[in-house]
Amino acid sequence: MMIYEGERLDTLQYQKLQIIQKEKGFRFGTDSVLLADFASPRPGDRVVDLGTGTGILPILMASRQEKSTYVALEIQEEMAEMAGRSVALNGMEDRIEVRACDFREAPKELGYGKFSLAVCNPPYGKAGGTLVNVRDSERIARHEGECTVEDVARTAAALLKVGGRLAVVYPAPRALEMMTALREFHMEPKRIRTVHSQADKDPKLILMDAVKGGGSMLHWLPPLILNNMDGTPSDEWKRIYRVNE
Amino acid sequence: MMIYEGERLDTLQYQKLQIIQKEKGFRFGTDSVLLADFASPRPGDRVVDLGTGTGILPILMASRQEKSTYVALEIQEEMAEMAGRSVALNGMEDRIEVRACDFREAPKELGYGKFSLAVCNPPYGKAGGTLVNVRDSERIARHEGECTVEDVARTAAALLKVGGRLAVVYPAPRALEMMTALREFHMEPKRIRTVHSQADKDPKLILMDAVKGGGSMLHWLPPLILNNMDGTPSDEWKRIYRVNE
Repeated sequence: MMIYEGERLDTLQYQKLQIIQKEKGFRFGTDSVLLADFASPRPGDRVVDLGTGTGILPILMASRQEKSTYVALEIQEEMAEMAGRSVALNGMEDRIEVRACDFREAPKELGYGKFSLAVCNPPYGKAGGTLVNVRDSERIARHEGECTVEDVARTAAALLKVGGRLAVVYPAPRALEMMTALREFHMEPKRIRTVHSQADKDPKLILMDAVKGGGSMLHWLPPLILNNMDGTPSDEWKRIYRVNE
Repeated sequence: MMIYEGERLDTLQYQKLQIIQKEKGFRFGTDSVLLADFASPRPGDRVVDLGTGTGILPILMASRQEKSTYVALEIQEEMAEMAGRSVALNGMEDRIEVRACDFREAPKELGYGKFSLAVCNPPYGKAGGTLVNVRDSERIARHEGECTVEDVARTAAALLKVGGRLAVVYPAPRALEMMTALREFHMEPKRIRTVHSQADKDPKLILMDAVKGGGSMLHWLPPLILNNMDGTPSDEWKRIYRVNE
């Protein structure tokens, strides 16, 4: 089998998809599932994932848009190898290429302006911004130091063609820093959506996309509410997690 | 009486306050009432209003915080004179001074770093951003050309002391431009609140404040929902309009 010791196999999207994860250490969270939905690739999109981790983003997106292809970049070799096995498990090897590399070096390797969509669930840093518990092995996936919002913006701007989109999820307290960095690299924020655990709660996460060379007019979507006021999952959550399929 | 031909007297906050407005032309809107609530002056605050119009903002804020004083700036002389009469009608002459002047010139007249709070319901411009109908006489109060987001940010930064706050309301599609301008003048956005007509609707307005010399950490408040799903006013709207007092 393709599962090693210390790993586990998780299913999602009502068991249509399989993802290998470490039993201990970083595992993908709701934020990735929300971002895959928000990014919603179009037919023909050529997509790059800046820091793919388990491979969750390209696997989810590829399952929803058959006419899209992916290059998934991951700095940790062991993680890249594991993501590659998940891709194979889902039979997506012809559409998703996993590469072990620092995404900041990717434009040199992959060329400039070759992608129509970039996605990134970047490391969260600083106090107050994290949603996920931080264990030792999550340091690289979840901590600053490895990369900055400027790295994300600069790399996306280099990899995308003019008119190409970058979709990201980011902690609300630092979303403005991300948007400021994007504008510095001529990536204009176009859509923004606040994510709330309940309708009366502060948003902890922000989904946003930005268009290379776009004009300044930001479209705010309705808030994404994950749970009803009685604590049950919202219809929107069920739609995103494909619970009724 | 203090009401002239072509004017009318409106009451608000359950008839505790009176505001003179033009029968035709610009009248204050929900946005001002929301901003007065959001800005919530503290005891001892010395407040400047950049473009007071009818005087609605200082009158509302002064009624809610007895230990605060105001300088309200208005570029249109006739409007400033009318706002002065509204201040007198509410017996607030000792706490609110209305000045007919271009707020961009105010730092020269009033001095630098003298205020702890600035408020601004700035002109909205460009397509798609306006909430209010635009009639001829509203041109100055509601249109670009008279002033820019940079004017607002620069003037507030000059008038405020370090640690002082600027609170503004702005159309959602252009809120990022306002935040970018604020950061350019070392006014760091600290609180942001999206305003929705209903919970499932896009926010059309954004309330935000920024602190002169503040660090970068943005606090997103829960969404401000004006109406329940059945169209009746929300409890939050009733609180802000003081309907139950």
